[in-house]
Amino acid sequence: MRFVIIGGDAAGMSAASRAKRNRPDMDIIVLEKTHDVSYSACGMPYNIADKDKLIDDLVVRKADVFREKYGINLLTGHFVEKIDSLNKKVFGATDQGKSFEFSYDKLLIATGGSPIVPKLPGFDLPCVMALKNLHHGRQIKDYLKEKKVKKVVIMGIGYIGLEMCEAFHAQSIEVTMIDMSADFLPWMTKDLSDKVRKEIESNNIIIKTGCRVNEIKLTNKCLKIICDDVTLEADMVFVAIGIKPNSELAKEAGLTTGVKGSISVNKNLASSDENIYAAGDCADAYHFVTGEKTWIPLALRANRAGWAVADNICGKNIALPGVAGTSAFKIFDLEVSRTGLSEKEALNFGFIPVSVTIKAKSRAHAYPGASEILVHITADKKTGRLLGVKMVGKEGVAHRINAVAIALQAQMTIEQFCQADLVYAPPFGPVWDPLLTAANQLQKQLDD
Amino acid sequence: MRFVIIGGDAAGMSAASRAKRNRPDMDIIVLEKTHDVSYSACGMPYNIADKDKLIDDLVVRKADVFREKYGINLLTGHFVEKIDSLNKKVFGATDQGKSFEFSYDKLLIATGGSPIVPKLPGFDLPCVMALKNLHHGRQIKDYLKEKKVKKVVIMGIGYIGLEMCEAFHAQSIEVTMIDMSADFLPWMTKDLSDKVRKEIESNNIIIKTGCRVNEIKLTNKCLKIICDDVTLEADMVFVAIGIKPNSELAKEAGLTTGVKGSISVNKNLASSDENIYAAGDCADAYHFVTGEKTWIPLALRANRAGWAVADNICGKNIALPGVAGTSAFKIFDLEVSRTGLSEKEALNFGFIPVSVTIKAKSRAHAYPGASEILVHITADKKTGRLLGVKMVGKEGVAHRINAVAIALQAQMTIEQFCQADLVYAPPFGPVWDPLLTAANQLQKQLDD
Repeated sequence: MRFVIIGGDAAGMSAASRAKRNRPDMDIIVLEKTHDVSYSACGMPYNIADKDKLIDDLVVRKADVFREKYGINLLTGHFVEKIDSLNKKVFGATDQGKSFEFSYDKLLIATGGSPIVPKLPGFDLPCVMALKNLHHGRQIKDYLKEKKVKKVVIMGIGYIGLEMCEAFHAQSIEVTMIDMSADFLPWMTKDLSDKVRKEIESNNIIIKTGCRVNEIKLTNKCLKIICDDVTLEADMVFVAIGIKPNSELAKEAGLTTGVKGSISVNKNLASSDENIYAAGDCADAYHFVTGEKTWIPLALRANRAGWAVADNICGKNIALPGVAGTSAFKIFDLEVSRTGLSEKEALNFGFIPVSVTIKAKSRAHAYPGASEILVHITADKKTGRLLGVKMVGKEGVAHRINAVAIALQAQMTIEQFCQADLVYAPPFGPVWDPLLTAANQLQKQLDD
Repeated sequence: MRFVIIGGDAAGMSAASRAKRNRPDMDIIVLEKTHDVSYSACGMPYNIADKDKLIDDLVVRKADVFREKYGINLLTGHFVEKIDSLNKKVFGATDQGKSFEFSYDKLLIATGGSPIVPKLPGFDLPCVMALKNLHHGRQIKDYLKEKKVKKVVIMGIGYIGLEMCEAFHAQSIEVTMIDMSADFLPWMTKDLSDKVRKEIESNNIIIKTGCRVNEIKLTNKCLKIICDDVTLEADMVFVAIGIKPNSELAKEAGLTTGVKGSISVNKNLASSDENIYAAGDCADAYHFVTGEKTWIPLALRANRAGWAVADNICGKNIALPGVAGTSAFKIFDLEVSRTGLSEKEALNFGFIPVSVTIKAKSRAHAYPGASEILVHITADKKTGRLLGVKMVGKEGVAHRINAVAIALQAQMTIEQFCQADLVYAPPFGPVWDPLLTAANQLQKQLDD
């Protein structure tokens, strides 16, 4: 059997390695358009933050390891242009201009996602950059080194924008963050987002919300970022307004796409063509809370989906039940985490969201060094089901969210969650964990 | 209605405050034998560690606040000697030698637990101390201050022994820890306990396992702790070999007792007498994993049970489903956590435990400062159910255990837990959280 994989990042290489482990005799071809495979994409901001690190430090396994040690036919610089699902073939060209074609028995599309870059004047300038793959990371790192960048404007205040904000700041670069949205981190509530904003601004980062860019112009002195009300100056613009699934190939092959244009897959990761699977940032998933399709491109799902595809083409029947949308980021001295639905998402899916925000301490009264944790928790008024949690604080915020992720997977009610036997020891929190305090308060609201 | 509460610690005061909030007109009498109420008992080791702190810093609310602000008739120095359940009365004496009696409509026994002290020669010496209530804490603190203690022997290597080990060490006191058990922390597995032992020993603490004390003798120079094979010298002995439920009153009143002599209560916290409730360290609970009775005296349960009793006597119907036995402690630079059953406990309850231990990193490959986390995970071979987890590491160990606590409450299988959407960001862990790596490995074992 020949298993062809388009894309050699998290999902693709996980699938290739796992399939080879399952069936050492399998003919596996990975077609990767870049020359980078198996690297920590999420680690790029932290690598860029540190001048002394090479971007290649992020590489976990080199291409040759997959070829020589694992026996995977990994073809880098191979860009797939077309899938012929009827004849089970893929066609493309190498970066040397040579065309290729391969037939497959089973195909995995693991083409990932791409940064969204506005189609506006100036966004094609070399000093306007985005970050998704190692090539981007290398470009940014080289640019910072060569150009002695002093001032950056970051477009988009999301995870990647914020992580890069800290990376630039670590290199003593002046940072202005702008976003079209009138609210700062609109998926949070104001109490929580204010805390994050204050932390960022206390590090001398300038934040401008409600700021729409119309054009970027390169003068002989600097870049001018021309917005509706203001013109900003910088040496570099970092674009982080979101990513989109790379699903063009799939669409052209007639596969069904869904949420935000991602490739629709069933719980076994099969697309609308039974011989074609999709995994990673290009594919959708079921949401634990809504039971409906969602598109939340994150690394754990990509790795897990890659494994599941490999197992399924090897005759197992692995179904991935879903995702909860659990994520976290660190911004200066704060941890921010979330899982489940926001109030707005809850409303969209027919729930009647009821929420509370509480303030708690990160350590017990009796233990020194406590800081404030804010917890925002949401449940459904009708059923009492826990729908989502967001947290901000200096410590214990990222790992704490996992308890909620499991509760969402188990479809717990707030009443049940209130009974959770969470850990208590003075160095790690109050007797009533901040999550329990939040749940108890919310239960009162539901009872009223 | 008159609600009488015996014991003014976590469970008792939680119940009193909650009942008063529920029904401001309720006649509530709390009978507390000491003069301390509402303090952070678990915070005592950290307070003792710091010479500059007063033991009364641990007091959250003073007795007068309960009396004057909350309107609770809080009687300190009142020791209850007898319950007449037939006539619904309690009898006792004050520490001034005055006898008292009170009738009740509903009674709560919240008498807590006491440190176990061996009935051997020398254990009644004033320089042989244990720690359960604030009075003990005050004694130890005063003793350390007055006697310039240089050398302590700690009997018993459990949470309290270890926390006090660090407290004594913080005061530059030489510590030897001894335990009768041949193994160090026998409820752990060797990989994990070795890591803890190494951490403790690297702080110049001497650990002696398999060490049975026969007698303590006071010479004019020091204390001699006479063991089977060795005689140790110290200025003070700290006894932390365990606690026992204070259930004598209940037994004498004819109430049913169970696991380790704790008072048997149903999920509503009612004892075998429908007018008498029990909560806190003196009472038992149902275990989420086994569905059977257990006795795990911990602070969160005590507070929660106090609330539930108050709600139930006010006409609500609050049932506490159970406990998972989630706990954690910090010892020098390590966090140690556990929840659920050990292999031995699992065997005792008819499970067929299968376990794996894995080593993982606390942060992603790409993020600096990672340390090692050890995870020991156990499941039932027959049903695939997750039974318990233990963890040791420098960071992210205490809060991480909460995800497992929720999974145990939801009675998840390892297969389900493997699908958990746990958080990933480079500062907080690898893509596959250590818990998922452990669960994945264990699932393989179960599949074989």
